[in-house]
Amino acid sequence: MPSEFRITRTVEFSETDMAGIMHFSNFFRWMEACEAAFYRSLDLPLISFVPGNVVGWPRVKASCEYKVPLRFNEVIEVKLLIKEVRSKAVVYIFQFRKTEAGQTLPVILAQGEIAAVCVTSDAQGKMVAQPIPADVRAKLEVAPPAAYGE
Amino acid sequence: MPSEFRITRTVEFSETDMAGIMHFSNFFRWMEACEAAFYRSLDLPLISFVPGNVVGWPRVKASCEYKVPLRFNEVIEVKLLIKEVRSKAVVYIFQFRKTEAGQTLPVILAQGEIAAVCVTSDAQGKMVAQPIPADVRAKLEVAPPAAYGE
Amino acid sequence: MPSEFRITRTVEFSETDMAGIMHFSNFFRWMEACEAAFYRSLDLPLISFVPGNVVGWPRVKASCEYKVPLRFNEVIEVKLLIKEVRSKAVVYIFQFRKTEAGQTLPVILAQGEIAAVCVTSDAQGKMVAQPIPADVRAKLEVAPPAAYGE
Amino acid sequence: MPSEFRITRTVEFSETDMAGIMHFSNFFRWMEACEAAFYRSLDLPLISFVPGNVVGWPRVKASCEYKVPLRFNEVIEVKLLIKEVRSKAVVYIFQFRKTEAGQTLPVILAQGEIAAVCVTSDAQGKMVAQPIPADVRAKLEVAPPAAYGE
Repeated sequence: MPSEFRITRTVEFSETDMAGIMHFSNFFRWMEACEAAFYRSLDLPLISFVPGNVVGWPRVKASCEYKVPLRFNEVIEVKLLIKEVRSKAVVYIFQFRKTEAGQTLPVILAQGEIAAVCVTSDAQGKMVAQPIPADVRAKLEVAPPAAYGE
Repeated sequence: MPSEFRITRTVEFSETDMAGIMHFSNFFRWMEACEAAFYRSLDLPLISFVPGNVVGWPRVKASCEYKVPLRFNEVIEVKLLIKEVRSKAVVYIFQFRKTEAGQTLPVILAQGEIAAVCVTSDAQGKMVAQPIPADVRAKLEVAPPAAYGE
Repeated sequence: MPSEFRITRTVEFSETDMAGIMHFSNFFRWMEACEAAFYRSLDLPLISFVPGNVVGWPRVKASCEYKVPLRFNEVIEVKLLIKEVRSKAVVYIFQFRKTEAGQTLPVILAQGEIAAVCVTSDAQGKMVAQPIPADVRAKLEVAPPAAYGE
Repeated sequence: MPSEFRITRTVEFSETDMAGIMHFSNFFRWMEACEAAFYRSLDLPLISFVPGNVVGWPRVKASCEYKVPLRFNEVIEVKLLIKEVRSKAVVYIFQFRKTEAGQTLPVILAQGEIAAVCVTSDAQGKMVAQPIPADVRAKLEVAPPAAYGE
């Protein structure tokens, strides 16, 4: 039962802005990419549109603190930590750190948080919150607060 | 029956890249935004997911020639011209020009082209090409080549 | 001295995701677009790369709460409110509401917050925080908390 | 002297649109990401802002033909082929193919082309075309047309 997960990713030219740094909105895309890779690693579908078994995870809150800018071609580790698992929602923390020569440096460049609620589709096709499916819940473990420095 | 349409739009900070100009991929988003505004002006749904009447316009080809870069806060006119209407497809041309004090300058900063095919959904939910619906077809007129300088 | 500002904007096809709603990262781009329009309305440059007078506003924190999803072609008002003006930073609140027939509906679909720090460039070209320039500071007024429901 | 290069990449949720497929504009971002990885593999800086040695590659033309849509979580190979090297410009071809269990399938899902011109900065800071630097030129080899099926 993992409580954390990591991906490594390179800052792309199209992700920079005229200030020469990664645009602040793109950190949220990276967080979501890390979440998706986490679900693939668990062999769980993040999203399912199978009629009768629709599952989605719309975001109810997202935030990010920016400490050091990211620049083109930098190689960055994004680390996901599970902060909270509620009956119908999960809260993730994401930490961004630089890697050099395959080593992750300790400094946190940015730290974000996403709260996602588990939904399905009702008979009218409307999204409604649902308990996290048991097979998903079984694979999610909350990280100890010390793991993300609280 | 219009054969052309215009929108005006300001270059956003998030659309620039570290070279200080609008990233080349964003011109394609602007072309599509102009197409969507054109359909709204015709009171036609560009996209419909109504079961039994699904309509979509996936792109089969898109291109753009870049002549002068666009910069943050510049106000740009995007002009759509209908180049071709086939039984199941439409080809649009898009011209980008700067505006100053409400006047559109003659210089073309960029010119793009999008070919979109009209599709619906078959019984298995697969996208299949279909003739352009008659109410849509009735509102599309081909622009004379002279209108886009050919 | 304005403490609030509004823009109206239509959800674009490229801003939606496969769940059929505006991707959560795009709300941050919209907030920034509203901030840029606010500065244009004040006739202030949001960004300046003029040597000796570089000004920028990197974000130190951004967050958003999502209550109701936004869909393709919906017309949305984004309202900026100045929550706080510090010596070297500004905190904005942004509220997203639907408009219909030119009327803004009261329901808040999403509410975000951005803290931006005023920087300039030191002799080595490094970004350093600086006091908000006096001509900018003179045009910023803090909104009463009641204006954003606190 | 390589004339081709490949990256593998997974379609992200934020890259899909409400039609459930990768938005057509994102193919252009992927092409550029492949180009950037190619330059990293050659140990060449794609972009340099070093005063006196500014190098950039603005795009003068970009196009893409879309044959089969890409979907969330699909793993895709992007293959770069050098189509043409002129004195001041390079033309690349990019082919998108699905990979399954580490094998690249033969079907081309999309094929794009980008023409980029080599520029530097003149004394006034204006971008001007320049001959491709010799160390870069020495590492670029044109692919035989048969390699991309012409």
